Amino acid sequence: VDARILALHKAAAAREDVLGLAGGLPADELLPQAKLATALAEVAASGADALQYGWPEGDEALRVWIASRLAARGAPVEPRRVIVTAGAQQALALAGESLRGARIAVGDATYPSALSAFVAAGAQVVCDRGAARYAIAGVSNPHGIELASRDELLAGSEVLIVDEAYAELRFDRRTPRPLVGDAPDRVWHIGTISKTLCPGLRVGWLVPPASAHAAVLERKQAADLQTASLSQAALVRLLARVDYDALLDRARQFYAERCERLVDAVRRHLPEVRFAEPEGGFSIWLETDETGDDVALLEAAIANGVSFDPGSAFRHALVDRIAMRLSFSNAPTAKLDEAARRLARTLTRWRRQPRAA
Amino acid sequence: VDARILALHKAAAAREDVLGLAGGLPADELLPQAKLATALAEVAASGADALQYGWPEGDEALRVWIASRLAARGAPVEPRRVIVTAGAQQALALAGESLRGARIAVGDATYPSALSAFVAAGAQVVCDRGAARYAIAGVSNPHGIELASRDELLAGSEVLIVDEAYAELRFDRRTPRPLVGDAPDRVWHIGTISKTLCPGLRVGWLVPPASAHAAVLERKQAADLQTASLSQAALVRLLARVDYDALLDRARQFYAERCERLVDAVRRHLPEVRFAEPEGGFSIWLETDETGDDVALLEAAIANGVSFDPGSAFRHALVDRIAMRLSFSNAPTAKLDEAARRLARTLTRWRRQPRAA
Repeated sequence: VDARILALHKAAAAREDVLGLAGGLPADELLPQAKLATALAEVAASGADALQYGWPEGDEALRVWIASRLAARGAPVEPRRVIVTAGAQQALALAGESLRGARIAVGDATYPSALSAFVAAGAQVVCDRGAARYAIAGVSNPHGIELASRDELLAGSEVLIVDEAYAELRFDRRTPRPLVGDAPDRVWHIGTISKTLCPGLRVGWLVPPASAHAAVLERKQAADLQTASLSQAALVRLLARVDYDALLDRARQFYAERCERLVDAVRRHLPEVRFAEPEGGFSIWLETDETGDDVALLEAAIANGVSFDPGSAFRHALVDRIAMRLSFSNAPTAKLDEAARRLARTLTRWRRQPRAA
Repeated sequence: VDARILALHKAAAAREDVLGLAGGLPADELLPQAKLATALAEVAASGADALQYGWPEGDEALRVWIASRLAARGAPVEPRRVIVTAGAQQALALAGESLRGARIAVGDATYPSALSAFVAAGAQVVCDRGAARYAIAGVSNPHGIELASRDELLAGSEVLIVDEAYAELRFDRRTPRPLVGDAPDRVWHIGTISKTLCPGLRVGWLVPPASAHAAVLERKQAADLQTASLSQAALVRLLARVDYDALLDRARQFYAERCERLVDAVRRHLPEVRFAEPEGGFSIWLETDETGDDVALLEAAIANGVSFDPGSAFRHALVDRIAMRLSFSNAPTAKLDEAARRLARTLTRWRRQPRAA
């Protein structure tokens, strides 16, 4: 991720007058603060286990929960195949390192930190076709729609790195069956609770193909020994007390409302931009006819009181026209119209501004 | 780390009748359970920040605390140079990755997961001399004594990866001045609260040379986005309420007592083994005249009701004679004599057992 973008986002986040449409943050309102506070206090006070070192593969009860969720969705996976990771990001990094040297196809735009993870791991990132393919199941990030169907993904023979970060957050509740159940030998299944429960715990998971399991586990141990015992123990306790399906339903409804509000606002204030109406997830992906440095555009937008994620961060190949991701997930619903208005004003000024070609 | 060893340790840990002298675990009695429970509940309940995503470099208040501790020990470091990591282990991995291809000297025996981190990162591990050197400051692991003095380390010109995991746990309270203050351009400073406060939080830190900072931060972000916000926020709150120096004093005294008990027990039951009397840390390093597969010896020891860390895990090069690390840190003080007795019995039987040369 571009250091200039990070610096701009940090400056914007520190300003109360900037409406933030950047980042893949869940809504503050949906974080289970009280229940998590109780769970954390209980596991910390109840014995040494949650505070001590654990095993590299993760908490047994958590792995059983992860496997049971996959089984309930039609993909039976044995708990011993699950490796608990530091969020989905570490799962991406571990998959990338295991595929070092391989060509990983990512499409025209994708999750920026997946690109970083693959590049840092020494994999070769390509747009179109590779021995491996990175797919975001159910709802692609940044597009907000399903880019490739299960059938399409299964028809090929590539190794599939399947990121399920948003899979259970389709507004229509049509959660896809996990691909790991169909092609366990070539699917690297990645999941997380960061979008549905709490990113600050940093808990995700990886189910590598069985043949890669031992090497991946060794790599996980070399990377950080294990994922935080305390996060895992608190999560297990929390999960025993919440109805996860009901929680997902509430989240889908909440985000669908915010999404609709942003879609309306963009149509009203930015009629010239193109985007697909999201089927789920946290964001819409705008394509414009503007050209130039989209980081400079972000800087101008922040000066106008709104932030977004520049499209260049999502792209492996250079693209002439400016695109951007707008996240509705963590912005106050009542401010989304004003945010789009500020963005429209920014773009209008951008067009009038003389720039070098 | 050898998968066979891990499997044996897991089996042993599940058995109540096995006295555990394996692992670098702090004493359960010293974990600040109640204070941490309160801190966790408070930060989780007090707002969204501790539950949301944070910045890759870590919590600002925590970085200030880390820098102020270093400054108080004679090594002024600006907080912006500190990167919060998932324990010292991730700091080792990040340092190793940054030194990919370089020869890192580790000595005859060292912390096994440092070896794993360097090898996984693509560095070349060597015993004697390299462009880089891994040093465990103050108290070396597994030896329990200072292996190389500050003067000796500073006399060379190698890049120094300085692991301070046990630096503040010398029994004589002579905490060395951090080398990062003397040679900031070639020292990778690594610290952690895992040995003094709570390993289950998974919080450590890395201060890379300034010239490497930006690249390391990018790598950290690619690895796991950031260290758990919740762990960091709870830690900051905890640190504001404890007297860290008093806590260190109590820990030193506690471990010195356990150490003395184990040293006495080993002298009584295993008079033929060689070891240095520890100056601090969690363990003693036994060298024997036995030969053979030390993992098989561990298996025999577990059958006799005691576990240890096989010396081969600490060595980069093969060594004929069996060595082992015995950790007194997490074993009940009253059981240390019996643990040494069981180990002595295991070795006696081992000597009598016919084995292939």
